[in-house]
Amino acid sequence: MDDEFANFLTHLECGLTSEYHQAGEVHGLSRAGKPLLARYDLSAIKANADRDAILARTNGFWKWRELLPVRETKNICALGEVDTPLIALNNLHKNGTVIVKDEGRLPTGSFKARGLALAVAMASELGLTHLAMPTNGNAGSALSAYASRIGLQTTVACPDDTPAINIEETALQGAKVYKANGLINACGAWIKAGADKGLWFDLSTLKEPYRIEGKKTMGLELAAQMGWALPDVIFYPTGGGTGLIGMWKAFAELIELGWLEKNDLPRMVAVQASGCAPIVRAYDAGKRFAEPWEDAHTFAAGIRVPAAVGDFLILDAVRASGGFAIAVDDEAIEHARQTVAQREGLLLCPEGAATYAAYMAARQNGQVSADERAVLFNCATGLKYPMPDAGEALDLANPA
Amino acid sequence: MDDEFANFLTHLECGLTSEYHQAGEVHGLSRAGKPLLARYDLSAIKANADRDAILARTNGFWKWRELLPVRETKNICALGEVDTPLIALNNLHKNGTVIVKDEGRLPTGSFKARGLALAVAMASELGLTHLAMPTNGNAGSALSAYASRIGLQTTVACPDDTPAINIEETALQGAKVYKANGLINACGAWIKAGADKGLWFDLSTLKEPYRIEGKKTMGLELAAQMGWALPDVIFYPTGGGTGLIGMWKAFAELIELGWLEKNDLPRMVAVQASGCAPIVRAYDAGKRFAEPWEDAHTFAAGIRVPAAVGDFLILDAVRASGGFAIAVDDEAIEHARQTVAQREGLLLCPEGAATYAAYMAARQNGQVSADERAVLFNCATGLKYPMPDAGEALDLANPA
Repeated sequence: MDDEFANFLTHLECGLTSEYHQAGEVHGLSRAGKPLLARYDLSAIKANADRDAILARTNGFWKWRELLPVRETKNICALGEVDTPLIALNNLHKNGTVIVKDEGRLPTGSFKARGLALAVAMASELGLTHLAMPTNGNAGSALSAYASRIGLQTTVACPDDTPAINIEETALQGAKVYKANGLINACGAWIKAGADKGLWFDLSTLKEPYRIEGKKTMGLELAAQMGWALPDVIFYPTGGGTGLIGMWKAFAELIELGWLEKNDLPRMVAVQASGCAPIVRAYDAGKRFAEPWEDAHTFAAGIRVPAAVGDFLILDAVRASGGFAIAVDDEAIEHARQTVAQREGLLLCPEGAATYAAYMAARQNGQVSADERAVLFNCATGLKYPMPDAGEALDLANPA
Repeated sequence: MDDEFANFLTHLECGLTSEYHQAGEVHGLSRAGKPLLARYDLSAIKANADRDAILARTNGFWKWRELLPVRETKNICALGEVDTPLIALNNLHKNGTVIVKDEGRLPTGSFKARGLALAVAMASELGLTHLAMPTNGNAGSALSAYASRIGLQTTVACPDDTPAINIEETALQGAKVYKANGLINACGAWIKAGADKGLWFDLSTLKEPYRIEGKKTMGLELAAQMGWALPDVIFYPTGGGTGLIGMWKAFAELIELGWLEKNDLPRMVAVQASGCAPIVRAYDAGKRFAEPWEDAHTFAAGIRVPAAVGDFLILDAVRASGGFAIAVDDEAIEHARQTVAQREGLLLCPEGAATYAAYMAARQNGQVSADERAVLFNCATGLKYPMPDAGEALDLANPA
């Protein structure tokens, strides 16, 4: 145990059955084959931690140390975390009603930094030495960076059509990268087979309990930035859904701690692409579990996730919040991306642009009103993604 | 004048002759053809502003409002500025002695955001409507974003070998982009000709007085982050040198304000590439002005600047600080980039990597000792630059 920071993690619970699992051990999925959720002694946190003292810290998501599972300070792997800014789209909408939270400012340029920093820190704490993961791009890059920072080995497998920039940054930051002749789920099976043989530990989304604790900090940070209050509605690009699940968990913990000025929870909106919308389909059909999506396609690769192991946790949160699930097509995503870039000077990633397309659709069909305060999550820097060819040839011999 | 913020700008001075130029008017270069420097009523700032109240603000470089030239709040164009993090290279060096300031976390992914935000804000305040600039990439992108945010028109000319990502983001954010059959200085001449005709205002580096005020915030922010103290030595990638000049100006202002705990100034080190090192050549020859470099070449495009209009300001600051100028070759830059990425998980841009290569060279030749606290400026996200091909083909039929 650390001198300065007490640790309040008590145990882990199966997200479906609530079955108890002991802390301090290496865990994958629960015995029921579902994601595990970390549980804390919240009344002890309430007695020992001060929300405003936490807020005054300058180390980004690591400032929430009392609400995170890491025990020893030496396992905190930091790469310059910042509180990601809130940017109001005031040229396009009434002052302050539509706000983008720009997660592209984190190390490695995406919100994956939050989850992977925590997963890597806990892997280090629990004595693991070699971590592996399938990835479509940003997760692999974040894993690679944080693992190299703390001195762990990493192996990543990605489909061979993954953008070169993701493969190159991941490799440059120290991971062994394999480009596979197949899709992300086939890469996942290959990684799992290696893990079963004892070659490495499988760090796939929600298959270990701590990435969700990192993503939880999006909700903690948002509440603190908004003066310990929450917006009316949150639009979240939903692939594996760890962030949506994590934020919902964060809000519950904040209420139990009594740290919110008002306990009004936001409506949670799961945004997917029309070409891969298993959660939207399950939501519309009133189901708690989602069938895998066939022939998934969308250029927003981060939400091209045919089957999410935390499907029921996403759908439970959306329904409990009075929110909804909504799909937008690639044309609407591209149009949203161009509109926000040209009118606000803000270049979103495709998944972030999907949330703005969904917001506009929801405004049009009356699911959201103009007076509601909406927060949209831009999950990565727009710079990692293909953009339309641009620029006009200029012969310098012709004067302006 | 704004209610909440008093404005302390008094006038502008020629950087060479100190000749007085009036505030509140559109300015290019001074009457002597040199950069203009903004001057403030520092004793009034001292009487009216509190350094710790400023530090508590959360709006990044805009927090320094009292030390900036913008009068009216409506001209503050903001895109989610953050204090850029300090990241110690503790795997490679003794704890806390080598620190990277990662400017890639700013809007549009580079330190150009600081200068262009201020230049655009002042252009708006002074009634300009159409701004233009030659660019090798990052400056054009920052100009485009901030101008669209505040509603001004922009035209940019770049060499047609500028990386596609820069051209595309700049265009997507609203600028008219021309790809020219020539180098950056030819683009600059074309832009100047258009400005002379009254088509637009020329916002080239140091040709207007306010970009330097934006870059100045690097020095203010660094001092505040280090507990109102400064490091022993600063390595700065030097193209046009606005940032080095700006930081040196910031330190002088901080001393006059009495805001530093200790008035020990850092040694300023100008880092250039061996293929384009006009400042290093002038420094070595004991000259105050630099001859233009012929046949400039280096893959670190941001420091491929053959002639800097602020050459004497750079050389004056380097000499006054007891620092030096140093050139590193492309091979050393690439090696530095790979070392920091693999060992620390931090992907630098080539210009940022040049500062680490220079630090290592200076350690080896004794110009810097292991005990000195060094800050290196990583001027942009590493993601905008080409990386070596990576990844190994994997046949999923073969198990791990």
